[in-house]
Amino acid sequence: MYSQEAKVLEENFVSLEIPAVSDKIINFASGLPDPRTIPVKDIEAIAIEVLEKYGYNSLQYAPSTGFVQLINEISKFVYRTRGLKTNSDNIIVVSGSQQGLDLISRVFLDPGDVVVVEEPSYILALNVFKLRRVRFVAIPVDDKGMKVEMLEDIIREYSREGMRIKLVYTMPIAQNPTGTTMCDERRKHLLELVERYNFVIVEDDTYGLLTFEEETPKPIASIDKSGNVIYLSSFSKILAPGLRIGHIIASDDEVTKKMHIMKQFMDLGTSTLSQLIVEVALKKGIVDKVVEYAKRLYRLKRDIIIELIDEEFSDVVSRTSPKGGFYTWLKLNRNVDTEKILELSRKKGVVFTPGKRFCINENKCLDAMRLSYSNPSEDDIRIGIRILADILCGVL
Amino acid sequence: MYSQEAKVLEENFVSLEIPAVSDKIINFASGLPDPRTIPVKDIEAIAIEVLEKYGYNSLQYAPSTGFVQLINEISKFVYRTRGLKTNSDNIIVVSGSQQGLDLISRVFLDPGDVVVVEEPSYILALNVFKLRRVRFVAIPVDDKGMKVEMLEDIIREYSREGMRIKLVYTMPIAQNPTGTTMCDERRKHLLELVERYNFVIVEDDTYGLLTFEEETPKPIASIDKSGNVIYLSSFSKILAPGLRIGHIIASDDEVTKKMHIMKQFMDLGTSTLSQLIVEVALKKGIVDKVVEYAKRLYRLKRDIIIELIDEEFSDVVSRTSPKGGFYTWLKLNRNVDTEKILELSRKKGVVFTPGKRFCINENKCLDAMRLSYSNPSEDDIRIGIRILADILCGVL
Repeated sequence: MYSQEAKVLEENFVSLEIPAVSDKIINFASGLPDPRTIPVKDIEAIAIEVLEKYGYNSLQYAPSTGFVQLINEISKFVYRTRGLKTNSDNIIVVSGSQQGLDLISRVFLDPGDVVVVEEPSYILALNVFKLRRVRFVAIPVDDKGMKVEMLEDIIREYSREGMRIKLVYTMPIAQNPTGTTMCDERRKHLLELVERYNFVIVEDDTYGLLTFEEETPKPIASIDKSGNVIYLSSFSKILAPGLRIGHIIASDDEVTKKMHIMKQFMDLGTSTLSQLIVEVALKKGIVDKVVEYAKRLYRLKRDIIIELIDEEFSDVVSRTSPKGGFYTWLKLNRNVDTEKILELSRKKGVVFTPGKRFCINENKCLDAMRLSYSNPSEDDIRIGIRILADILCGVL
Repeated sequence: MYSQEAKVLEENFVSLEIPAVSDKIINFASGLPDPRTIPVKDIEAIAIEVLEKYGYNSLQYAPSTGFVQLINEISKFVYRTRGLKTNSDNIIVVSGSQQGLDLISRVFLDPGDVVVVEEPSYILALNVFKLRRVRFVAIPVDDKGMKVEMLEDIIREYSREGMRIKLVYTMPIAQNPTGTTMCDERRKHLLELVERYNFVIVEDDTYGLLTFEEETPKPIASIDKSGNVIYLSSFSKILAPGLRIGHIIASDDEVTKKMHIMKQFMDLGTSTLSQLIVEVALKKGIVDKVVEYAKRLYRLKRDIIIELIDEEFSDVVSRTSPKGGFYTWLKLNRNVDTEKILELSRKKGVVFTPGKRFCINENKCLDAMRLSYSNPSEDDIRIGIRILADILCGVL
């Protein structure tokens, strides 16, 4: 009765742990921004302005490719903040980066195609690729990002079997779930490989502006010469996720055209009102304001969680040192399935995401977990980590 | 480089003819609602109310399945206005009915599956099915809707070859592009067939509330006993398309669950702000108010366009008598490709959609065209039809 695609659905379902307003849970599970970073009052003023200025046009269908006013603002924004020079024709507005991943997958991937992912990697990117029934190759991430040096060997190995790598999915800055950033040598190496072996790189820059270091590397798309890097980002973490506005930037006109048409088939186009709100928020510097505030807030929260982890359970786990973003990645020093830990902690009002969900090879990350420090308050981070520490010490 | 799916994109691209604010074109091409039906002031008041009441929660991620408040309002609305009794768990909020079509296709269809469509049918539904690389069977539509009596023969014929019909896509009320409504006998027959032969019916009820007769038939989903009818509709034509809110209603729990998960993979969830706006608009009776006004307005416009067509070029065309909705379907009495007519009329500032785009068998509808009377003003309808009449009389 169901499609082949539908068969992968249930076994890969993850609870997004979107709390109801009444929920009292301490949520280390989801990638929800801190409520304080969402500029509700500014967005309210902008919504009124947009509805007054554009009238019914702000509620009519928008072009599938996105509103030209928004596209122009995005073009300026990514150049100013990320050094990515682009042509407006190469930008596609999507309903969040999740839709961007789905769209890109549908344009490029067929069953059996070889897709390289970081291990661990973003769960819902893996799920989108699973829908396409691809063949996965997982490359480990360490504190300098994806181990790109392994990629060349893998490409050669496949090539000997007459196969090729079709697509590499990477999050070079403040990776989800580890928080690590790819070092310069690996970035250069990756670009050398894409020029030599002609695959597609999907560069997910969702956390690219939310970094805690003095200098943040530019996206690899900004220094790529191959034309094969597709850049993906969104305003979910730097304005408001509920508007569902993300953007894909390609450098090849044919690629962009195919993606434009795919977007039309998928949903005709993204919410007009949301697009116009983001346009004005960009124009008025609201997004810049959020970025400045959010960087400081998430750095503070990272410092709190890291210090507490080291204090409370450094003897039972190792952890990453997030360079930005929302997450730290823990590995228990003993072989315990963190799904079991979650069962216990949920009863105590604390949730996180077990590590195996981020891995193609589920046995590898059984003893790991992702803790998201973005959403809980500073106090809740403290309370939550102590609850987790009690549980871990009891189990380990 | 591209996927199999991507290969069907370019040849099936249609311009949605979304006018820029400055455009002076008379647009018989697109399914845009009349601007006067979009309650901008009400929506502005509701947006303010929602942002004040829910604060950052109105801009945070929403559950993939849709906001429970909205789902409850939709449940009441479809029961009250369309007699469709449903369980809230069986409703999925989607980003417009286009996303609903794509979602359903992905859950059910594999390459080679047999899909029955009306001929002519909604272009972008055909395109979504084409992405799945299905095998099409086209059943003609007459003034009583799809010729359901042909369906049984087709099912038997396929069955003899060891194949089965997987899915039937129908728009029983005010069909796009013909404006015709399926008669009672055919509706009953269709339901008999779905019980006997166990295929999936996708019932697109987009125009179900915008009808011009005293009595509008209920959706077939409301009288179905097989559990195989999936109901699809949206608020694009009865509130505001730019909010991108549609809804799928299934009666089978397993089907709903699969669709829920697919929705998560596709874009995490639909715009929170849009969902809350539609919720409040339903609760306050704004949608009912729009429906009442829009029905009268579109009936008036249908009367104007039909009268003019009969006056100005009855000797060269035949036309349908729309029972509701946005469209009338014309057939020229001679063999002229209407794509050519469009080239000429565009130069005179009038656009429409050539018939072959609505047909699987493109040669059949070469001499047809869809005229949408929903968006142009009454005056523009008069001017536009006269311009078209001039061109048609010159060519034919």
